[in-house]
Amino acid sequence: MAVGNVAVPQTIYAIDGIKLSVTAAGVRYKGRDDLVVIEIADSAATAVVTTQNAFCAAPVRVLREHFAAAAPRYLVVNTGNANAGTGTDGKRRAEDICAALASRTGVNADTVLPFSTGVIGEPLNSEAVIAGLDSALANLSADNWHAAANGILTTDTIPKVASQKITVAGTDYHITGMSKGSGMIRPNMATMLGYVATDANIAPDLLQEMLSAINQQSFNRITVDGDTSTNDCCVLIATGKASSEVIDSPEHPHYQAVFNALTEVFVRLAQLIVRDGEGATKFMTVKVTGGKTTEECCDVAYAVAQSPLVKTAFFASDANWGRILAAVGYAGVEDLDTEQVNVSLNEVMICQNGSVAADYTEAAGNAVMSRPEITIQIDLARGTATDTVYTCDLSYDYVKINADYRS
Amino acid sequence: MAVGNVAVPQTIYAIDGIKLSVTAAGVRYKGRDDLVVIEIADSAATAVVTTQNAFCAAPVRVLREHFAAAAPRYLVVNTGNANAGTGTDGKRRAEDICAALASRTGVNADTVLPFSTGVIGEPLNSEAVIAGLDSALANLSADNWHAAANGILTTDTIPKVASQKITVAGTDYHITGMSKGSGMIRPNMATMLGYVATDANIAPDLLQEMLSAINQQSFNRITVDGDTSTNDCCVLIATGKASSEVIDSPEHPHYQAVFNALTEVFVRLAQLIVRDGEGATKFMTVKVTGGKTTEECCDVAYAVAQSPLVKTAFFASDANWGRILAAVGYAGVEDLDTEQVNVSLNEVMICQNGSVAADYTEAAGNAVMSRPEITIQIDLARGTATDTVYTCDLSYDYVKINADYRS
Repeated sequence: MAVGNVAVPQTIYAIDGIKLSVTAAGVRYKGRDDLVVIEIADSAATAVVTTQNAFCAAPVRVLREHFAAAAPRYLVVNTGNANAGTGTDGKRRAEDICAALASRTGVNADTVLPFSTGVIGEPLNSEAVIAGLDSALANLSADNWHAAANGILTTDTIPKVASQKITVAGTDYHITGMSKGSGMIRPNMATMLGYVATDANIAPDLLQEMLSAINQQSFNRITVDGDTSTNDCCVLIATGKASSEVIDSPEHPHYQAVFNALTEVFVRLAQLIVRDGEGATKFMTVKVTGGKTTEECCDVAYAVAQSPLVKTAFFASDANWGRILAAVGYAGVEDLDTEQVNVSLNEVMICQNGSVAADYTEAAGNAVMSRPEITIQIDLARGTATDTVYTCDLSYDYVKINADYRS
Repeated sequence: MAVGNVAVPQTIYAIDGIKLSVTAAGVRYKGRDDLVVIEIADSAATAVVTTQNAFCAAPVRVLREHFAAAAPRYLVVNTGNANAGTGTDGKRRAEDICAALASRTGVNADTVLPFSTGVIGEPLNSEAVIAGLDSALANLSADNWHAAANGILTTDTIPKVASQKITVAGTDYHITGMSKGSGMIRPNMATMLGYVATDANIAPDLLQEMLSAINQQSFNRITVDGDTSTNDCCVLIATGKASSEVIDSPEHPHYQAVFNALTEVFVRLAQLIVRDGEGATKFMTVKVTGGKTTEECCDVAYAVAQSPLVKTAFFASDANWGRILAAVGYAGVEDLDTEQVNVSLNEVMICQNGSVAADYTEAAGNAVMSRPEITIQIDLARGTATDTVYTCDLSYDYVKINADYRS
């Protein structure tokens, strides 16, 4: 069961220049939406980031080649099969899908980017995907974000959509996005995917820089189990339909407002993945302040966020602060003066100068731990850097989901 | 329930120059052995390694100071309370215990090394420890290894003892050791402890080098949950009683045989911790071969051994090899050619050249996965380095033990 506010927004703004469709192609299961096609206006700029996993899936390899060669016009996403660990045959199948979509739409094959999510190591039924393309292309619509968000899910329990409108100096900008994933890696369903579009007019190089920076604050700051998928991809499209005014540098007067709104949408989509984390019953924000560098803040935040002992303590609503201190202690921060470290859970200070806080009570600790949303704030008191990571607890259901998955 | 052969050896060799005792001091629970004293002959050389955790416990800080100042004559170990996160008061209490033991035995306080394991963040009842010293000192005996191994346990389910005799060129050498721990960090009971003694005559500097090297192949190659304790310590004592012949360099004719026998004892004691890992139902050896460096082999082995997805798949006896590949892929090996990677489970090759092996069958994979002891062999095929890590699976009981621990 997902944690906290996971509602789909009441208003999902269509993005001029983007059309989506979803169909049931029967890739793995019959009668289940499993194929999404996204059409991108030829005016658009597109930015992409992909998994760092050396065992990246066949579609990720094809995507990288295509993206290097041409501006994308179509994205094609299948669920049910990740087409990972499938060697040269898998790559050929990903290429076949792109070629089939290209021939039906009159574009070059390298303007099509493929995405797959699902079981690893089984041959992708690319024939079924190709057979589903006609139906998908017949149903393209700017209003299909919600349906498409459902169509890219695997074992997620909720569709993940965020949408915003901002007005900057009289220009309306719209941003809508969707994501999927319930772990950084979803067992056999091994993928975190994110697609965000805006009608802002942003120069391609700047768009890629913005995506990289925003990704570091959103999808790259979540962890359910510390595993990184073979298929993770994130796409940001700027269709340019909102204005002829091109945002071409960080100094442009519209830049900061658009950047901030995009960041909000990305953070929301990333947090939705954690809120729908496998077996999650708590949503935790690990905020580290007072570091010498962002890197060491991030190391500490991840050590805490990924500690099975911390995560099980949160599942148990047990204010077991010794586990948090221990994780801070092994995060590898050089010359950490532990006697300066302070730790709070929401408004309750639990650790002051490296020991239990003077006015801390177990009752106060357990009261805050019983809430579904908890911010763990760790102050290293040695600098001005800060970083934040989002995670969830580790429950019986995490083990159950991942142990039972293929049975 | 511990996995596989965890029996205490039929013969536990006494080590001339070492006496041990155990008593119930009532540190946390009444009527439970919780205080162990080890007396070391003044002829002995002693080596120590301690936790890398920045939040190391008070006894670890005292131990480091004492060990730097003098050759140890007594080790004093209490369970029930880790004396960690206890600030200057905790350090004073550890000092008090050492001073009390020193005054009763006529040695200097800095020849006493303190060890604590148990709950973090509560004041240690050092008065109870000190009150228990007289009883402990009255019962010192060379034959108390088994009783002492029971006396240092917290929530471990089995005592952990290893013992060996070897004969080198007519000289008999005896080695006996004990360990405790069920996770790299044991929740509030936050400690891995290891004590090994031999009657070999080894120069102190060489002994420290040997301990560091052996530790890298044993206690530093096990992981249950990836958490590193605030209290981990490992001690190696060479009493010198077996021979007047001093082993003073790796070129000494007795060196290699003694080193190998010590390594066997350490690896056994380390493996026993994993076999008794929290909720463990499987014992896994992750062996990485064909690396460019030991470090990258170790990175890959730890990525696999610590992946919650790999660990839950082993709990489920599910040959979900995609999870192993994914962990190899995110281990951070630079320029890894995934199409060269081979993976086997015991004798079953599951992955050949980065894809599923040609003659692999799900039946063969699941048959090997149903065994309680499994070797995951990963060949990176890019060099000659190798490394091995020991771990266990992730079960419902892991979550139960760690979520329910304080309730």
